[in-house]
Amino acid sequence: MDTQGKHISIYDTTLREGSQCVGISFTLADKLSLCMELDRLGVDFIEGGLAGSSPKDDSFYKEMQKRTLTHAKLVAFGQTVRQKTSPANDKMLQSLVEAGTSYVAVFGKTHISHATDILGVTPDENVSMISDTVAYLKSKGKKVFFDAEQYFDGFKADKDYSIRCLKAALDAGAETVVLCDTNGGVLPFEIEEIIKETVTLVPEISGKFGIHAHNDCGTADYSTILAVRLGAGIAQVAVNGWGERCGNANLFTVVPNLTLKLGYGTIPDLTVLYDLAHSSCETANTKMWEFSPYVGKHAFRHKAGTHIDAVVKKASSYEHIEPETVGNTRQFMLSEQSGRAAVTAKVKQLLPRLGFDSSDATLIVDKIKALELEGYSFEGADASFEMLVKDILGIRRSWFTLNTYKVVVFDNDDPKAHGTEDSSGVTASAIVDVTYDNRREITADNGIGPVDALDKALRKALTSFYPAIANMYLVDYKVRVLESRLATASVVRVVIESSDGQRTWCTVGVSGDIIKASFDALVDSYTYMLDNTVM
Amino acid sequence: MDTQGKHISIYDTTLREGSQCVGISFTLADKLSLCMELDRLGVDFIEGGLAGSSPKDDSFYKEMQKRTLTHAKLVAFGQTVRQKTSPANDKMLQSLVEAGTSYVAVFGKTHISHATDILGVTPDENVSMISDTVAYLKSKGKKVFFDAEQYFDGFKADKDYSIRCLKAALDAGAETVVLCDTNGGVLPFEIEEIIKETVTLVPEISGKFGIHAHNDCGTADYSTILAVRLGAGIAQVAVNGWGERCGNANLFTVVPNLTLKLGYGTIPDLTVLYDLAHSSCETANTKMWEFSPYVGKHAFRHKAGTHIDAVVKKASSYEHIEPETVGNTRQFMLSEQSGRAAVTAKVKQLLPRLGFDSSDATLIVDKIKALELEGYSFEGADASFEMLVKDILGIRRSWFTLNTYKVVVFDNDDPKAHGTEDSSGVTASAIVDVTYDNRREITADNGIGPVDALDKALRKALTSFYPAIANMYLVDYKVRVLESRLATASVVRVVIESSDGQRTWCTVGVSGDIIKASFDALVDSYTYMLDNTVM
Repeated sequence: MDTQGKHISIYDTTLREGSQCVGISFTLADKLSLCMELDRLGVDFIEGGLAGSSPKDDSFYKEMQKRTLTHAKLVAFGQTVRQKTSPANDKMLQSLVEAGTSYVAVFGKTHISHATDILGVTPDENVSMISDTVAYLKSKGKKVFFDAEQYFDGFKADKDYSIRCLKAALDAGAETVVLCDTNGGVLPFEIEEIIKETVTLVPEISGKFGIHAHNDCGTADYSTILAVRLGAGIAQVAVNGWGERCGNANLFTVVPNLTLKLGYGTIPDLTVLYDLAHSSCETANTKMWEFSPYVGKHAFRHKAGTHIDAVVKKASSYEHIEPETVGNTRQFMLSEQSGRAAVTAKVKQLLPRLGFDSSDATLIVDKIKALELEGYSFEGADASFEMLVKDILGIRRSWFTLNTYKVVVFDNDDPKAHGTEDSSGVTASAIVDVTYDNRREITADNGIGPVDALDKALRKALTSFYPAIANMYLVDYKVRVLESRLATASVVRVVIESSDGQRTWCTVGVSGDIIKASFDALVDSYTYMLDNTVM
Repeated sequence: MDTQGKHISIYDTTLREGSQCVGISFTLADKLSLCMELDRLGVDFIEGGLAGSSPKDDSFYKEMQKRTLTHAKLVAFGQTVRQKTSPANDKMLQSLVEAGTSYVAVFGKTHISHATDILGVTPDENVSMISDTVAYLKSKGKKVFFDAEQYFDGFKADKDYSIRCLKAALDAGAETVVLCDTNGGVLPFEIEEIIKETVTLVPEISGKFGIHAHNDCGTADYSTILAVRLGAGIAQVAVNGWGERCGNANLFTVVPNLTLKLGYGTIPDLTVLYDLAHSSCETANTKMWEFSPYVGKHAFRHKAGTHIDAVVKKASSYEHIEPETVGNTRQFMLSEQSGRAAVTAKVKQLLPRLGFDSSDATLIVDKIKALELEGYSFEGADASFEMLVKDILGIRRSWFTLNTYKVVVFDNDDPKAHGTEDSSGVTASAIVDVTYDNRREITADNGIGPVDALDKALRKALTSFYPAIANMYLVDYKVRVLESRLATASVVRVVIESSDGQRTWCTVGVSGDIIKASFDALVDSYTYMLDNTVM
């Protein structure tokens, strides 16, 4: 293919657009974790969030100044200078500068009536705001991306003006102008016409433009691909397409399409995409859309009898690529085909010194299948997976024996009635009974809700055996209800993320009872900590 | 637009492809109900399922012979005759004939190596199978659609052969040939090239072809639109894109794109699309993807501050169409902006006879803001919203007074230790203390987990006051952990969906304690039921 080898820069906007996605609210730790993951993935640019908009985003940029990315460039995001303000006096631009990144991206209006009606400035003022902003950031040593907001709609409304805005940004020294279909309402054939005309009218844009597309017509991915075919060197995408309204072009669709279908160079290794798509959902505590192209669980699941028949004879009959190419797996919906190789690789990664053969792998695969049927998911829960492997191989060390636990839950509307007169919100008390090495500890504590009370009581008991437990704390706690048709008696999956200040790990518990599910995950977490701590 | 008025036939394949979708298993009643809905929607063709493949599909066709569709034509679906069988002796073809529809669709191989490798016939035999099948069905008085399976991949592999297959179908009397991207792996620009070449090589196809696209590259919707722009008169789509693997072109994306963006004639009224998208999910017992273009709940939800600002000034700034066009509604996710008008509209909808003025609306907006800050979300919880409005206006009726509740939770590893020797999974016992009209009920029950136990105990108490409560049951129970950085003591939002068999309602509870959050939602749900039930 004639595109072979040409590198397209992948610009990830998840940390900015993703935070505008309904249902997603990144914490600082989420943002840092996703940023490092995206760097490991090998994207070229990572947009970090609107500088100066919140203490969270400012902390993010500050924290990132202490870290080193191996490949990606971090891009601080902001907008053109406020009307009638000089850039040096514009707070947001100062935040952009102080973010400490070598690249910055600023968005500005390129639709004439948005300049006049939304910003309330004259068309000329808007053009100056673009020039002044880019020039100022250049003078501060930044490389500048200019996001031409509403470019395609603007071009349709008044192409001369939109072109003028682009030129202003380029003349002021923007590295790249990013053509944005901000409303996602422009169909690909129009995107094509407008890009072609733009390249004709502004020849200096060649090799210096990118694309940012929204999915309101269901065509963001293809608009992005098309723009690349027309010469865009930068594709803006987001993890799982997270973004405002219907979202943005999806990293996990665009990148494999560009790489596998069109032969462009993008990221070094596509086989990690499936795992990253799913683990990102765990990080963001949001649901994976399993019908997603390439990386959805269902993307290579075959259900129709004729399809299964044919795929057995010749996989390509109903598969457009080999699922393993993107780390996915083929499944027949009524049979078993699964990942012994994947399990083996994972075990070797987690427990490199473990003797491990293919019969062990078979045992583990079988156990995982059985547990997944119950609702377990080990995708994000490496620590629980490690515990499981050790259990099956009979090498799990017993750090303590949990004899029993009990929790009492009560409404806290009348604290006096329960002897909890403080205003700390205590609504539960837990008792745990734990033995280690002939020592028995029966401990109790109060908490806000039953899981908190149980955690505190168990921690008390374990700390008396193992003081190192005092360094451990819970970072995150996520609950997902499975098979929710059974209402309050439905099955619940709990994922707990723990840390000892240096590293974090995740464990999982599944039960009809949310307390039991949480407790199982807690016990795995403490065990993992003890297994991996030099005493 | 030059397409204005040209009618494109919408061919719905939900009842066939949708049943091949992971997670969907239609009952006969589901199929009948969807079929009637699709007819009311005004699609032109409804594919009913693989004839002869199951008693369910045969019953469906039989049942449909007793019903009258107002607009749509029902299409029975099957495949070309088996190798070395005459059509009159082919069971499946007999089922097709007996389905009693005036239209039938048959799929056949048009990819040379699929004919040889999957069917195990010679290329010539496959062509004869196509001709014989179409001719036989014609002779039985049927109008025949020929689905050219793997057409685009086949064309790329051996275009002469694929063309020969198409011609065989047309020569034998097929009304229409449907070009299928069965694997979903062909990008739109290739679809375009191949359609153009096909029309050149087989001019008689003009006006006689349709498109059937799968979404494995994320481009099914656009491939469908593109084919229509290139002359396809029939667009095959499925409700919510339900279909094998990543699904098919989505009715709710393709139809508004064709109608609103390109001016084609499709169905008479787009404003029903939002409701149909959602009610179909209820029928199929599957989840709606709320990021879906046009009909997803999030499609016109604005979250970024700058977007909300701008949309208040000019809706088209961040909306590609007016949401009402497809029956959707605009929402601002942070109620700092707007709010009052939206709240007023909602109250008037829920409680039409309520006297309500703008100062009430202000009170409610303020309360919602305060509650949203705590983590409440009334998006899906109309019943809790109604309770809130009544509370604020001082018109909430007190059906019972909850004095206290207590729950005991224990591990069930040793059931004897807790006197629960049954194997029902019981892990919690609850006590509630409720008063109504000077009657006090202290009731208790066991459950799987604390929420289940509480629900049962409360239900026991309330049923003694209000026997109608016995008709109520919980449909769904959802938990979301908010601000999860606080780990097990984080804030939890619980949404409960309840039903009395005739309608369903949702309530919400938020607390640091999952039990309290669940219980608040339960109490709202019971209160709503009592408020809205004639005793």
